[in-house]
Amino acid sequence: MSEDSGSRRRFLAQGAALVGGAASSTLAPPSAAQELAAQPWERVYGAGFTGYGQPSRFEAPVQRHIVRPYGELAPGSGAAFAPLESLEGIITPSSLHSIRNHSGTPEIDPKEHRLLIHGLVVRPLMFTVESLLRYPMTTRTHFVECSGNSSRALGAQPAQVPVGAIHGNMSCSEWTGIPLRMLLDEAGLASSAKWLLAEGADSAHMSRSIPIEKAFDDALVALYQNGERLRPEQGYPVRLLLPGWEGNMSVKWLRRIKATEEPTHTKDETSKYTDPLPDGRALQFTFEMGVKSVITRPSSTMALPRPGLYEISGLAWSGAGRIRQVEVSTDGGATWAAASLQGEERPKSFVRFRLPWEWTGKSALLQSRATDEKGRVQPTRKDWTARYAPDMRYHNNAMASWAVAADGKVTHVYA
Amino acid sequence: MSEDSGSRRRFLAQGAALVGGAASSTLAPPSAAQELAAQPWERVYGAGFTGYGQPSRFEAPVQRHIVRPYGELAPGSGAAFAPLESLEGIITPSSLHSIRNHSGTPEIDPKEHRLLIHGLVVRPLMFTVESLLRYPMTTRTHFVECSGNSSRALGAQPAQVPVGAIHGNMSCSEWTGIPLRMLLDEAGLASSAKWLLAEGADSAHMSRSIPIEKAFDDALVALYQNGERLRPEQGYPVRLLLPGWEGNMSVKWLRRIKATEEPTHTKDETSKYTDPLPDGRALQFTFEMGVKSVITRPSSTMALPRPGLYEISGLAWSGAGRIRQVEVSTDGGATWAAASLQGEERPKSFVRFRLPWEWTGKSALLQSRATDEKGRVQPTRKDWTARYAPDMRYHNNAMASWAVAADGKVTHVYA
Repeated sequence: MSEDSGSRRRFLAQGAALVGGAASSTLAPPSAAQELAAQPWERVYGAGFTGYGQPSRFEAPVQRHIVRPYGELAPGSGAAFAPLESLEGIITPSSLHSIRNHSGTPEIDPKEHRLLIHGLVVRPLMFTVESLLRYPMTTRTHFVECSGNSSRALGAQPAQVPVGAIHGNMSCSEWTGIPLRMLLDEAGLASSAKWLLAEGADSAHMSRSIPIEKAFDDALVALYQNGERLRPEQGYPVRLLLPGWEGNMSVKWLRRIKATEEPTHTKDETSKYTDPLPDGRALQFTFEMGVKSVITRPSSTMALPRPGLYEISGLAWSGAGRIRQVEVSTDGGATWAAASLQGEERPKSFVRFRLPWEWTGKSALLQSRATDEKGRVQPTRKDWTARYAPDMRYHNNAMASWAVAADGKVTHVYA
Repeated sequence: MSEDSGSRRRFLAQGAALVGGAASSTLAPPSAAQELAAQPWERVYGAGFTGYGQPSRFEAPVQRHIVRPYGELAPGSGAAFAPLESLEGIITPSSLHSIRNHSGTPEIDPKEHRLLIHGLVVRPLMFTVESLLRYPMTTRTHFVECSGNSSRALGAQPAQVPVGAIHGNMSCSEWTGIPLRMLLDEAGLASSAKWLLAEGADSAHMSRSIPIEKAFDDALVALYQNGERLRPEQGYPVRLLLPGWEGNMSVKWLRRIKATEEPTHTKDETSKYTDPLPDGRALQFTFEMGVKSVITRPSSTMALPRPGLYEISGLAWSGAGRIRQVEVSTDGGATWAAASLQGEERPKSFVRFRLPWEWTGKSALLQSRATDEKGRVQPTRKDWTARYAPDMRYHNNAMASWAVAADGKVTHVYA
């Protein structure tokens, strides 16, 4: 983690005020402290303790972007996007984690919930949540990205909304749970078992088919998220987590895993989540999410108040493993500079990238391009679009572009 | 991260039920799925989206342990301990982060708050929060532990309370902020500047003296915690973060940094946070927190329902850097086994340690012992106690002991 690359510069143009007027080359006058007036909250005894804290009321505008395609007809169907424009670091707070629900969030009593493992197994097993909580666990940081994330960047015109409302159908958490292979090992898989059906306890019984190899790779039966028990919207009391794969496969409110010989072809993997190609065919079972990045600051709908030094900050991730490099261009791809990375040691996790940038006050075009440890490079919008039929709405990992105008306004553009 | 050490065992004794009665060596009967009854929440359309989510109502008992030594006279003075007994993984959720407040939590308007850097500097500077938010940042995971954490393990009798109420005056977050050296670089330190005074905007103006070397090592001016802006209890809108050092030095609600030649000897570092020795002298400025660990599960006030396999899970950390090893004993220190570690690549961060344990139903004595990358080893209670005067209440990094009785009940003991 190279924190220091290019950072030892004078950022005074950013708006910090010199005390005592113009720049001085002498030591501070003794009166400088007097310029720091005591504020009202320094004169009164502060608030008492709370058992479960909440954000400052001044942060109340930081909320998920809710998209309900069926409106009041189905208020729990759709998605809620993480407000990436207001977030920093790698972890997404659980309260702001993106949500993709097919029939709302069920309110599950953990004492009554059960997980059944059955099908082609020697010993079908029924687990209570309490019994799962005593199993050996592992802790890892992974992103979850909806297969349909960034579909809002495929409209006829670039949407002029915050970056989170376009690319925020994804989040990253520290997950703690039981390796799925451990539970399958207890049930004893038949040699004919090649697939698993995972089914959720929502009223849609969202279900997907999963090749058995993923269970023996890195799949988790997750019980904790960012230190505490899963949030209801993220599958409380228990969810599947398939790191790096289409978010909907990490089945929430997990109630059933059935070992099968063939994929089940559920409604959720035939009517949805298939990828139309230019020649009229469609791809099915494109599980892995592509290598991708997006600049979150500065980004669409923001404004730079004045020329000067800024930090370009964003997120990168890949369903194939670790991020090796993120490059940033401020001139629409003519030249690129390597950004510094934080969290790049974690596979299938968000990585935070950063690059100092001096904005001279001229128009600029900001882009980022990620490369993962398999050598895969994030495609341009043009290259990505050429791969699929015009109605493709999944797996959009194309580069995003933000234009900075001479007045500092940042807009979403197609480039 | 060795997830698999010893984990491929049969955990059936943990309470998972075989479907269809006794253990079967045949494949599951087709009727197994029928035994998974549909629950009420699978029959109704689920809840709609929320802008800022909350835990399940079934998790409402998971709250911080609040300690108010002055009661209603000073309801915001004291501490709130993280409920370690209910948490897993490494990150502490911000809503459950431990709190040590001297005069309550101020409600600060970020538009009005200022940070002044002055004293022995060339250019005294006044920062708005908005100007700080545009500086280059870095993201790192660090624990914050109150110097007085675990003082409740120094009473005459072992307290029979959950582990969080004894050892939970500490937490671990992903922090994002500006390296302090960058702001000092802008202000231009005089060569005579050897110490910094950091002061908070609470009504106590909590303040501590900090040697200048820490500022040029890893000190941060933190603005974000676990992805979102700092919580009010953690210093919103801006706090100092001195990784690995006594928690109170990471001054919250940071309003002023003054460069000085000598330590200021504030009330907070003379009347408190000094360490009495057996010979009547006292240590001052013992900044670094020691190498330490604690088993969180099973722990005090819990009960093991029946003999069988369990996972021993806990936290380890060191103010000096990375954790190299955690050993666990189930026989009061006669024999030790190395636990598996998660997150051990991060310096001055919690590490989660885990060890599978078969409890045969006999009494047992559980202990953990951490070693850091500097080779420092967590002391026994006896060795730690011999170092200080009897009224010492800070820097208790002695090993904790949990006794498991034949009936499965777990109690806090001194051993």
